[in-house]
Amino acid sequence: MILAERKTAEQCLAIARAFLDATGRAVLSRVSLELKDRLEREFVRAAVLQWNAAARAVVLRRPGSRVEASGGRVGVLSAGTSDVPVAEEAALLAREMGCVVHTVYDVGVAGLHRLFGPLTHLLEEARVDVLIVAAGMDGALPSVVAGLADVPVVGLPTSVGYGLGGSGVAALYSMLQSCSPGLCVTNIDNGIGAGAVAGLIANRAAAARRGANS
Amino acid sequence: MILAERKTAEQCLAIARAFLDATGRAVLSRVSLELKDRLEREFVRAAVLQWNAAARAVVLRRPGSRVEASGGRVGVLSAGTSDVPVAEEAALLAREMGCVVHTVYDVGVAGLHRLFGPLTHLLEEARVDVLIVAAGMDGALPSVVAGLADVPVVGLPTSVGYGLGGSGVAALYSMLQSCSPGLCVTNIDNGIGAGAVAGLIANRAAAARRGANS
Amino acid sequence: MILAERKTAEQCLAIARAFLDATGRAVLSRVSLELKDRLEREFVRAAVLQWNAAARAVVLRRPGSRVEASGGRVGVLSAGTSDVPVAEEAALLAREMGCVVHTVYDVGVAGLHRLFGPLTHLLEEARVDVLIVAAGMDGALPSVVAGLADVPVVGLPTSVGYGLGGSGVAALYSMLQSCSPGLCVTNIDNGIGAGAVAGLIANRAAAARRGANS
Amino acid sequence: MILAERKTAEQCLAIARAFLDATGRAVLSRVSLELKDRLEREFVRAAVLQWNAAARAVVLRRPGSRVEASGGRVGVLSAGTSDVPVAEEAALLAREMGCVVHTVYDVGVAGLHRLFGPLTHLLEEARVDVLIVAAGMDGALPSVVAGLADVPVVGLPTSVGYGLGGSGVAALYSMLQSCSPGLCVTNIDNGIGAGAVAGLIANRAAAARRGANS
Amino acid sequence: MILAERKTAEQCLAIARAFLDATGRAVLSRVSLELKDRLEREFVRAAVLQWNAAARAVVLRRPGSRVEASGGRVGVLSAGTSDVPVAEEAALLAREMGCVVHTVYDVGVAGLHRLFGPLTHLLEEARVDVLIVAAGMDGALPSVVAGLADVPVVGLPTSVGYGLGGSGVAALYSMLQSCSPGLCVTNIDNGIGAGAVAGLIANRAAAARRGANS
Amino acid sequence: MILAERKTAEQCLAIARAFLDATGRAVLSRVSLELKDRLEREFVRAAVLQWNAAARAVVLRRPGSRVEASGGRVGVLSAGTSDVPVAEEAALLAREMGCVVHTVYDVGVAGLHRLFGPLTHLLEEARVDVLIVAAGMDGALPSVVAGLADVPVVGLPTSVGYGLGGSGVAALYSMLQSCSPGLCVTNIDNGIGAGAVAGLIANRAAAARRGANS
Amino acid sequence: MILAERKTAEQCLAIARAFLDATGRAVLSRVSLELKDRLEREFVRAAVLQWNAAARAVVLRRPGSRVEASGGRVGVLSAGTSDVPVAEEAALLAREMGCVVHTVYDVGVAGLHRLFGPLTHLLEEARVDVLIVAAGMDGALPSVVAGLADVPVVGLPTSVGYGLGGSGVAALYSMLQSCSPGLCVTNIDNGIGAGAVAGLIANRAAAARRGANS
Amino acid sequence: MILAERKTAEQCLAIARAFLDATGRAVLSRVSLELKDRLEREFVRAAVLQWNAAARAVVLRRPGSRVEASGGRVGVLSAGTSDVPVAEEAALLAREMGCVVHTVYDVGVAGLHRLFGPLTHLLEEARVDVLIVAAGMDGALPSVVAGLADVPVVGLPTSVGYGLGGSGVAALYSMLQSCSPGLCVTNIDNGIGAGAVAGLIANRAAAARRGANS
Repeated sequence: MILAERKTAEQCLAIARAFLDATGRAVLSRVSLELKDRLEREFVRAAVLQWNAAARAVVLRRPGSRVEASGGRVGVLSAGTSDVPVAEEAALLAREMGCVVHTVYDVGVAGLHRLFGPLTHLLEEARVDVLIVAAGMDGALPSVVAGLADVPVVGLPTSVGYGLGGSGVAALYSMLQSCSPGLCVTNIDNGIGAGAVAGLIANRAAAARRGANS
Repeated sequence: MILAERKTAEQCLAIARAFLDATGRAVLSRVSLELKDRLEREFVRAAVLQWNAAARAVVLRRPGSRVEASGGRVGVLSAGTSDVPVAEEAALLAREMGCVVHTVYDVGVAGLHRLFGPLTHLLEEARVDVLIVAAGMDGALPSVVAGLADVPVVGLPTSVGYGLGGSGVAALYSMLQSCSPGLCVTNIDNGIGAGAVAGLIANRAAAARRGANS
Repeated sequence: MILAERKTAEQCLAIARAFLDATGRAVLSRVSLELKDRLEREFVRAAVLQWNAAARAVVLRRPGSRVEASGGRVGVLSAGTSDVPVAEEAALLAREMGCVVHTVYDVGVAGLHRLFGPLTHLLEEARVDVLIVAAGMDGALPSVVAGLADVPVVGLPTSVGYGLGGSGVAALYSMLQSCSPGLCVTNIDNGIGAGAVAGLIANRAAAARRGANS
Repeated sequence: MILAERKTAEQCLAIARAFLDATGRAVLSRVSLELKDRLEREFVRAAVLQWNAAARAVVLRRPGSRVEASGGRVGVLSAGTSDVPVAEEAALLAREMGCVVHTVYDVGVAGLHRLFGPLTHLLEEARVDVLIVAAGMDGALPSVVAGLADVPVVGLPTSVGYGLGGSGVAALYSMLQSCSPGLCVTNIDNGIGAGAVAGLIANRAAAARRGANS
Repeated sequence: MILAERKTAEQCLAIARAFLDATGRAVLSRVSLELKDRLEREFVRAAVLQWNAAARAVVLRRPGSRVEASGGRVGVLSAGTSDVPVAEEAALLAREMGCVVHTVYDVGVAGLHRLFGPLTHLLEEARVDVLIVAAGMDGALPSVVAGLADVPVVGLPTSVGYGLGGSGVAALYSMLQSCSPGLCVTNIDNGIGAGAVAGLIANRAAAARRGANS
Repeated sequence: MILAERKTAEQCLAIARAFLDATGRAVLSRVSLELKDRLEREFVRAAVLQWNAAARAVVLRRPGSRVEASGGRVGVLSAGTSDVPVAEEAALLAREMGCVVHTVYDVGVAGLHRLFGPLTHLLEEARVDVLIVAAGMDGALPSVVAGLADVPVVGLPTSVGYGLGGSGVAALYSMLQSCSPGLCVTNIDNGIGAGAVAGLIANRAAAARRGANS
Repeated sequence: MILAERKTAEQCLAIARAFLDATGRAVLSRVSLELKDRLEREFVRAAVLQWNAAARAVVLRRPGSRVEASGGRVGVLSAGTSDVPVAEEAALLAREMGCVVHTVYDVGVAGLHRLFGPLTHLLEEARVDVLIVAAGMDGALPSVVAGLADVPVVGLPTSVGYGLGGSGVAALYSMLQSCSPGLCVTNIDNGIGAGAVAGLIANRAAAARRGANS
Repeated sequence: MILAERKTAEQCLAIARAFLDATGRAVLSRVSLELKDRLEREFVRAAVLQWNAAARAVVLRRPGSRVEASGGRVGVLSAGTSDVPVAEEAALLAREMGCVVHTVYDVGVAGLHRLFGPLTHLLEEARVDVLIVAAGMDGALPSVVAGLADVPVVGLPTSVGYGLGGSGVAALYSMLQSCSPGLCVTNIDNGIGAGAVAGLIANRAAAARRGANS
């Protein structure tokens, strides 16, 4: 995974090429439209480019290569619409790790009734191995979800919020203080990190389902 | 209201006497058992003493005097058992302002199902004018309650919690960031302040019900 | 209420349309001039648009619909001229909840004599049910007002100030520490939140005056 | 799980009895020696008491009841000897969830050579499903471990450290900033929380190994 | 001036003796009763000891020596009774610098009416050269006073307050943010520092009145 | 004094006109070049405009009016060249209060030898009544100066600095912690506040020299 | 060394000229391309200009002058590619002090295996006198290096990182908390400071090797 | 080096014994008198115990073993008497590394004249290779010293100070912001760390003087 922010276009191109050569794939997050266009031109022959606008991410793949399904099952929830880019970043990474990802957005605690149906679906129908819950502002949703679910929950605070405790600080603090068992967290806006740990959790269970690793 | 912390016993006695003389009543919060005993000895003749162990508060009243019922109706909720002393402090002050106070404790978001019944009762049966919601740790309960209730909610963070965001900081931040309309807050452990503002809100409605102040 | 900041124009339009359809009204805060123009073009037929330049807010209303007067009475004070946009945001929301709103601006504690007359008018002539007091910098005005008034006061810190305690932090801290009974607070620049809680308080009293809810 | 800190002995006894009645077990953390003795006297007939001195925790069990092995496999590492009590708290909870727990202590980054052997053993011999890594001070160990391991890692900061960034703040910040994929964290000293999320992760994999939940 | 806190009794005695020898006087602040007794025994012959219980300070003077009146005039105000020890510390130091000091305590902004009379007296009757204003909690009093007075004001925050912004932080922030011209501040509880700067200001004016230094 | 930042040009013009009408003068700080030009056009007839580029300040004066010399004497020192704008702001205000102001810049503690000569001149030749010492970064200069001078010192931290303790925080903290008697401080970049309090101090002494106010 | 940030081009030119005149050299850091061009034009005759793009630094040298080799030996490591500009700033200053500087970049703890070879080379082949280790994010690399090396290590935190502990705060805290003996630190992004102290350390050893200073 | 704080007496004894067996020496810092006595009894035969009361440290040495002189030369300065224990801790460690250590205490910036003589002696007579400068409160001394000295300076902030920036925070911030080249820092009260890095620096120079390591 290549974090494009704070790197020059040249640095991004060089690292992407190195990843492509080594693994057949390169994933770039926090990608500007300019960089996306630049990558398209540069890799027009060498790779297939996918642009995930919601997550502001690019996936480059050597022609013919594809993600191998792992069987891992991940659910991603977000409290508000402003949390979606970070949630999508997490979803994208879990998908690149081979997981099936189910997303449910805009189910924050200011209107709890919207939460119960989709959550039950994720747990009982989709039978997810792990939940990622993205929330900014008061960060209360992961606590509520971890109190209701029996799978591990990865709290993903987003930099949504203003004034005291703004930029995701209140959300992160609140998740760290949660009384609900089964909740761990990543840093503010770290969708990549949340996707990576959730992908590992789900794939561990999936490998066991396939009889591997036992 | 006399905050006994950081005052000498002599200062507390002097201020209590002044309040008794002026208004027929003195309320002391954060009272140690030593101070309570001292007050009992000192005012054995001059006043009737009530000891509220849960709130660590003393009410001194000139013999014969009593609280006049205002008709205000206040509900007090707490997320955990450790939040009860602060919640009781708030309840005591609202009662001293003449309100009827209904308390419901230990209904935090780690077990949401315990919340819905009592909350419906407070709103529809007891028809409270205002809710005080005390919570430490993640401070998520006031957000949830304000999303469900149609009366003003006073968030009361308590100094319960540890590590980053501990001592009530996460709880206060989270309440300040809440997306639920109708929520205002007081400082950490400020049960007196929460009781006072809730009492004013309830008594304003009660006065209107009595036809006063219109 | 739709917070336009951090949302794309498309998201704002979609949410505004959904609100209009559901409730006949949509209120947008923190609106840029570009977004205002875009909304005007987009809803030229479907809605009447009001632009509140001071509060940087837009109200869209289905033709023919209007705010129903609740009878609630709200006073809004500001310490300085820089606090006015946030104060206006609060006033706008209270008006949209049906309240009559009285505003008095630029009466900070560096010149206390300007405060007494208007405050007496609000309390004795306008007989407001609740006061919103917006202040940045030292945030001292809400403490002073709550010490003088016998109605609930909602302290509204604004992000005015520089250096240590700047961006409204000193103002919020100072309001949280106030010794004046009857004061609660919202987060920095949260005019919407202050307006909502004040509207609820005033409307509770107003409903009682109308004999409802008793 | 009952956090004994900030609760009176009476509250702890009452909650422990309620847990015992409902589930046949009660786990208490942050238990003083006084409380331990009190629990022993109180439950001498009703329960078997286990005292974990390192974790300062008590497990009460109805006579005849026992933990059912889940098949989950958890590894617990600590950077220093001062981190052991918190690490033990995590280990105890994972064991109470039925997991087999392997512990390796005092392998901090100031002497990296001590780490490699035990870590390889945990991953290749014990084949753990998840690692808990407890560290105070600079909190660097979880980053190093997550860079070397291919299982999910739960970073557990401890309140060890002094001066700026002391009491575990530097450790938590450092874990939140880690570049190593597959790392999530809990709050400072939250051994219970780390044990709970690791237990859930391990038991999910174990259930899949048993063919359940697929 | 000798800050006794964090020094051993032996260190305090040695430094006091050195000051006595060099200047005929030694002032010790933050003195425990034990240290006071020790000083009394130690210097029973060599010095006259004055114990200022309110300021927890000791002044040792070589027999026969005394403070020379400078003609400087200082006013000291406090917002609450808990601020008095720090205010007294400031007053003591200004007196030791030869100033006449006038004190007015317990005139905080929650009851502004108590302030106006005494303040007018200080300015117009006592004609003070400078005011020290001690306040904890919201720290609003110095702003109000500096808005009303035409002499320099030294804001002296005290470590009174709890929760967010407690221990004097809100008070100090608020004073730093004040809009009232003519206000400078010292650190929390630094009565000595406030007394020293006020003494210098007053003595400069007094020297000019005596025709010196012109 | 009108702080132009965060005010619209229209607001600045209106307030400037009001000040001019009431007092014959208006001082505006933090003025952009655009605003300066606008003020020039607007007041081309009504006032004489002075532009202080170093302080980014404008003084408008009714034709014929001028500052009356008070006789107060103020010294202004700065540690570095980046501190000069804030130091100049302070100097300007003291001059507008009628003081004679002496400035000495770029005498920070990294090269102490540059300090001693100018400081001796200020104290013994110019016989200043008060010193303003502006410093960013480590903020050490006011401590050093207050240890050497026998007049009151106003520490003026500037927002110069980066990394931890940057933007003037280290400078302010260091001044608040100074052991040198006779030092008080204002907020970061508050040149106006430092100038105002120093002007009051100097003018108090000057008035005494003139025989007034005694 | 001239920090160009926060200075006008004119100020930079004037100070550079003064340095050139006095010492035959001027080093400017944090130089924009505009300023670089301006310096080139301005000093086209008077000096030879070297532009270090990676460090964003300019060295001006009087024609004919050159750095005299001191014999000091400095190693510079960086954890990531984003840390390189700050690391280069440090390397440049050490070179200007006459040291031989060896740089090894992108050897962070998420992939420890890349570290061991180059570090052994620096210690055993290049026999450096001191190491500078630049790291942002979790700041773990200096702790690991100081645990392995037997020379003094200067930790250089960089402002790389986001969310809680971002902008280099976590990196700095982690270095301050390190358990590895032999580590000292400079402020975030202070490449100049790290280069200066490392240069002094190396040159002290080099002088001793030359037999000087003994 | 064994930090005795936060370890049980049993842990300290065990670690001390392990160090003695492995290296013939054990150094314990932050040792209580109880622990000192316990160590004396325990090691009465096995080791010679030295008690450094000022540094609260114990050195245990196998009978017959001694520190080998390295030829390194270290100077230690402190600003105040309260900084001495931390300064002594640093001195002790440097001595245990074989250095000659010169100490000069109580030369803070509030009385600069006391500094110059001893500093000149350290640099020109004792020809130290490195200086450790311990300071609490405003932390200004290391900046002043590094501006005057041409050897590396290790700033050692101490937890002396109160109010805002207290407990050594202002001192550490100020040192991090210093403009004086050649200064690096350790964490607050980390005398051991400062001694270790200074010892390495001095011993590197000493080895070169002996012709080793070249």
